[in-house]
Amino acid sequence: MMVIMKKGHTEEELTGILKRLEEIGLSGHTIVGVERTVVGVVGQVYPGLADDLETMPGVDDIVPISKPYKLASREFKPDNTAIKVGNLVIGGGRTVVMAGPCAVESEEQLMATARAVKAAGAHILRGGAFKPRTSPYSFRGLEEKGLQILKAAREETGLPIITEVMTVRDVELVARYADILQIGARNVQNFFLLEEVGRAGKPVLLKRGFASTVEDWLLSAEYIISQGNRDVILCERGIRTFETATRNTMDLSAIPLVKRFSHLPVVSDPSHGTGKWYLVEPMAMASIAAGADGLLLEVHPNPDRALSDGAESLTFENFRLLMERAKAVSEALGRPLAKPSASRAGP
Amino acid sequence: MMVIMKKGHTEEELTGILKRLEEIGLSGHTIVGVERTVVGVVGQVYPGLADDLETMPGVDDIVPISKPYKLASREFKPDNTAIKVGNLVIGGGRTVVMAGPCAVESEEQLMATARAVKAAGAHILRGGAFKPRTSPYSFRGLEEKGLQILKAAREETGLPIITEVMTVRDVELVARYADILQIGARNVQNFFLLEEVGRAGKPVLLKRGFASTVEDWLLSAEYIISQGNRDVILCERGIRTFETATRNTMDLSAIPLVKRFSHLPVVSDPSHGTGKWYLVEPMAMASIAAGADGLLLEVHPNPDRALSDGAESLTFENFRLLMERAKAVSEALGRPLAKPSASRAGP
Amino acid sequence: MMVIMKKGHTEEELTGILKRLEEIGLSGHTIVGVERTVVGVVGQVYPGLADDLETMPGVDDIVPISKPYKLASREFKPDNTAIKVGNLVIGGGRTVVMAGPCAVESEEQLMATARAVKAAGAHILRGGAFKPRTSPYSFRGLEEKGLQILKAAREETGLPIITEVMTVRDVELVARYADILQIGARNVQNFFLLEEVGRAGKPVLLKRGFASTVEDWLLSAEYIISQGNRDVILCERGIRTFETATRNTMDLSAIPLVKRFSHLPVVSDPSHGTGKWYLVEPMAMASIAAGADGLLLEVHPNPDRALSDGAESLTFENFRLLMERAKAVSEALGRPLAKPSASRAGP
Amino acid sequence: MMVIMKKGHTEEELTGILKRLEEIGLSGHTIVGVERTVVGVVGQVYPGLADDLETMPGVDDIVPISKPYKLASREFKPDNTAIKVGNLVIGGGRTVVMAGPCAVESEEQLMATARAVKAAGAHILRGGAFKPRTSPYSFRGLEEKGLQILKAAREETGLPIITEVMTVRDVELVARYADILQIGARNVQNFFLLEEVGRAGKPVLLKRGFASTVEDWLLSAEYIISQGNRDVILCERGIRTFETATRNTMDLSAIPLVKRFSHLPVVSDPSHGTGKWYLVEPMAMASIAAGADGLLLEVHPNPDRALSDGAESLTFENFRLLMERAKAVSEALGRPLAKPSASRAGP
Repeated sequence: MMVIMKKGHTEEELTGILKRLEEIGLSGHTIVGVERTVVGVVGQVYPGLADDLETMPGVDDIVPISKPYKLASREFKPDNTAIKVGNLVIGGGRTVVMAGPCAVESEEQLMATARAVKAAGAHILRGGAFKPRTSPYSFRGLEEKGLQILKAAREETGLPIITEVMTVRDVELVARYADILQIGARNVQNFFLLEEVGRAGKPVLLKRGFASTVEDWLLSAEYIISQGNRDVILCERGIRTFETATRNTMDLSAIPLVKRFSHLPVVSDPSHGTGKWYLVEPMAMASIAAGADGLLLEVHPNPDRALSDGAESLTFENFRLLMERAKAVSEALGRPLAKPSASRAGP
Repeated sequence: MMVIMKKGHTEEELTGILKRLEEIGLSGHTIVGVERTVVGVVGQVYPGLADDLETMPGVDDIVPISKPYKLASREFKPDNTAIKVGNLVIGGGRTVVMAGPCAVESEEQLMATARAVKAAGAHILRGGAFKPRTSPYSFRGLEEKGLQILKAAREETGLPIITEVMTVRDVELVARYADILQIGARNVQNFFLLEEVGRAGKPVLLKRGFASTVEDWLLSAEYIISQGNRDVILCERGIRTFETATRNTMDLSAIPLVKRFSHLPVVSDPSHGTGKWYLVEPMAMASIAAGADGLLLEVHPNPDRALSDGAESLTFENFRLLMERAKAVSEALGRPLAKPSASRAGP
Repeated sequence: MMVIMKKGHTEEELTGILKRLEEIGLSGHTIVGVERTVVGVVGQVYPGLADDLETMPGVDDIVPISKPYKLASREFKPDNTAIKVGNLVIGGGRTVVMAGPCAVESEEQLMATARAVKAAGAHILRGGAFKPRTSPYSFRGLEEKGLQILKAAREETGLPIITEVMTVRDVELVARYADILQIGARNVQNFFLLEEVGRAGKPVLLKRGFASTVEDWLLSAEYIISQGNRDVILCERGIRTFETATRNTMDLSAIPLVKRFSHLPVVSDPSHGTGKWYLVEPMAMASIAAGADGLLLEVHPNPDRALSDGAESLTFENFRLLMERAKAVSEALGRPLAKPSASRAGP
Repeated sequence: MMVIMKKGHTEEELTGILKRLEEIGLSGHTIVGVERTVVGVVGQVYPGLADDLETMPGVDDIVPISKPYKLASREFKPDNTAIKVGNLVIGGGRTVVMAGPCAVESEEQLMATARAVKAAGAHILRGGAFKPRTSPYSFRGLEEKGLQILKAAREETGLPIITEVMTVRDVELVARYADILQIGARNVQNFFLLEEVGRAGKPVLLKRGFASTVEDWLLSAEYIISQGNRDVILCERGIRTFETATRNTMDLSAIPLVKRFSHLPVVSDPSHGTGKWYLVEPMAMASIAAGADGLLLEVHPNPDRALSDGAESLTFENFRLLMERAKAVSEALGRPLAKPSASRAGP
């Protein structure tokens, strides 16, 4: 951490900083420049130190040097984290596709979708039993009944399932059914929930928040890992910007950036990221090309009758075509699609 | 709701839309324009209808007409909502000031602050016992011990207290101590928590999220009101933009805008909104001038030793000067400061 | 400037940095911390040095210390710049109001508006003869004819005039008529134009760009000042954010922030900033309260027939009411309205 | 265009709207809904009509239906525009690579780069002779000397050249040397410059502005096309968002979106888009996968000594590796790299 002194600071103000650092077991190295004096802080910096120092007399600014996350950083763990889900590996060099409806609406709808995505080569089945909705008047999911339908679909198809958990109260329930617990964008800083899923013994897919910087997002992952669960999959799903032509603005550069700063796998959700079904396929290809370890995609038997997010869902046929292109692109990049899941995975 | 047809749509596609509307008990009025054909939907539109129609063949776009929130809207309730907290009224035409430290750190720190803000004319005491922190390694509050200290401060000073609740699990506990429950920016779409505080029988201060549009924010208020609790105070505290010179960008235009669209009172938090103590006073004055019903301010006996958010906290002396200016400005605008609380308020 | 070395950098990489600094006449002071090694650069840093050093082997990041603008900074000139326009002073502690139509549409429209705003107490007349329009099919102004009408209005009312110049080619022409040259948001980084108005011998009002940080904006001012013209008035007019309920998001915190970093006066344009006439008055009051040196306001005899920006224009009556409130608020804050212009100002 | 009436509007207000529409040669069709009354406007809507109507009594909101751009729209011209530059075609189904240094610094630097990028398979040589720089103290280009060096490089290598023009004054000069005129992000709404290059008889590459919506950007293209020049190449180069880990946030979804709305070719600039050399390759691949017609890339013989944007430039070797991957990815997608330019192109 560097403490930048104001121009014209007094000798006493500088001494005050150095003394304060000493009090808390750190040391300060002073550099007197042409324009400014800077104090380099040496020692184990604690969180909140920047705030403490910033308001001391004579201080102009504080510049942090280290990243605030530790366990999620590549400096802490230089090799990629590969997460096992049944026979599958996420983050192991092959591209994994998770597909299914935004919300589980009925047994019939989910089963038809599960069969179709499996036939097209998907590896994991997605479907929401608990749905976060901006309006209290929108459809909010079948809850436990939805989880039971997901379980039945896994039994028939062998596809592991990923589903969202929205509140601390439901973590144990959802973890009984799901192979991967999903944390939605709106809960990315619901810290109690992050800690609870950190103790649930299942891999966690953590979506980026609408307004999360890459650093915030990795700090949210840190909350999960700090409870002992290293199996965290990050999921880029778009951020809020001034552009309204798409539902969100996908920040694909976050994919290679996160992979540089962190050892965690990163997947991409172009369905929520764009909000338009006709942008899903090009952005899915772009995500693979940017280095994503996988895709999370919405597929629905009849998108124009979907109870949520119909406009961004693919039909079965569009999904099949997407998988063909995904195969070609991922092979050209040396990260081929994962092999289809053969076994019957179980929680 | 208006359905905009694609150029070159077929007769069948148009008929398909009209039939579909009929099926669900609505009617469609077709307008054939020079460039486009538009279908006006008449009847009680349900949530999700836009998504359903958008993907039908021949449809280019859907344009909603009504606001998605109802109970929070001024159309539903034309007169201002005035919320009683002990002897005080928030939203009744007088400016209310809530002040105190970001976090309760010790009995000594809180008591000193409570006395100082009361002496300077504050109406309500703020202080966090549960603190949401971006990093898991930051100070996270004294929890129930903090609530007890707040209660003791209320007993001595007579100031009602406002404090944050972060998880469903703690609502009952926090509601036993607090006069107003605060929902932080990170929880603005934690829908289970919103519903829980909607049933807790206490006024709720709902901060705007980093990435909440005004519409999203009012929908979050709708979640609370839909549980029977109309005592919702909105709090503007800045949004995330590309500007990094301030911690957030305060959107003061949201204050008169919300007051036009909604009957709920709106207060402003220039401490978190700017993140710089030297911007707090001008932005507090600007908030009053923009029409805010009150202010939420951070005050600390020793900002440079605060365990959180020291850089944005006012000293006792700066708070006293701010209150003097607030008095002058609010009087010039015809919305004078509320009278100091005399009674000993209790939960 | 601080050079942050990567963890695990080699001795040679560090030596490379120190040698490179020496080559260019600077010196480097090395601080070996627990986590990182940092090199403090001492000497006269040149622009682009950060880019040069950032790509050298072993370098993780570069942290600038000084602000990149010089002539616009308060460090360079500690006292406020006060700009004389005829009898008026902008930035001298009194609030100045510039009002008029967005575009000059006809002699009748402008004259009626000029008389009305003068009667209500405005100090300067605004009106666009050259209009930047997002669409090539929108009304683009009366050009020189519009300038002549503005001149006639000045002759009758004695109000100095401010009008926009959009291209290098027209600077001389516009400067023959205008008392203040306005640079619009879209031209904030039209560097040739900035330099040209820097040589035109007239005060310049420089609007903030939709996407300008405060630092970018001050660097654009620096372009003007570097040509010898110190009479630069900054104008906050909103930035682009995800919020679409208003035309732009006004960043009022930029007003006190700029006044801390720079000696230049700052005014506010709530008409373009909000895009809604009913938000103009509250945001005008808020701007004064935030410390603005003045206001730039759109007034039109018949806003619903205006050729541009009707939705944000005030009627004569609404402007009169606004001026009454502005008087009260600015007096309460100790920065009363400037005295009305008596003399016949001339270019 | 739809006019949404306020709840509780009067009969007279509705009649006022209908009369007004009649006056201007349009007709209004009224739909009385359960909640709102809407007037559908039929006839040739003119720019600015929305503003006019919005302020009429009884009107709540105006909803446009048509896109505001015409000549740039796919509705106007359904088939893709393919632009010839010498032997090359941009937008014809093959991927075109433009590469070179950000700024021309010397004959030696440019020649070495031109030879290297040609050897690696680039199709067009880029290099700035006029450089827009945020700070007036940064290196601003060699100007005409730079253009002469570019010309010499074309003569030797046969690569067509693209270079930026920043002001109306220089259009004729730059057009004498360049094969493609580049308009930078800061000039995207410099309307006089857009019109001037629309008359210069050369293809124009139009970068997206930091704060341009897709609609704004297409309207800027419309300015150029409206002067008779249909050879406009759009270039996505990132927008400004709250994320500061990258220089800008690349909005790759804009690529397929623009291609849906417009017939113009779109290329991508991951060098400026990310600002980090190590993100250029993954984002270049992602751009191709998203459907880009080409790439614009910075390559420098010695990035750590570059006079501008060194941190985002590729070394010769990194560029060579990128071209190998680009070949594989573009072939997998069915849009192979264009064939190398054989002829000696000339302006």
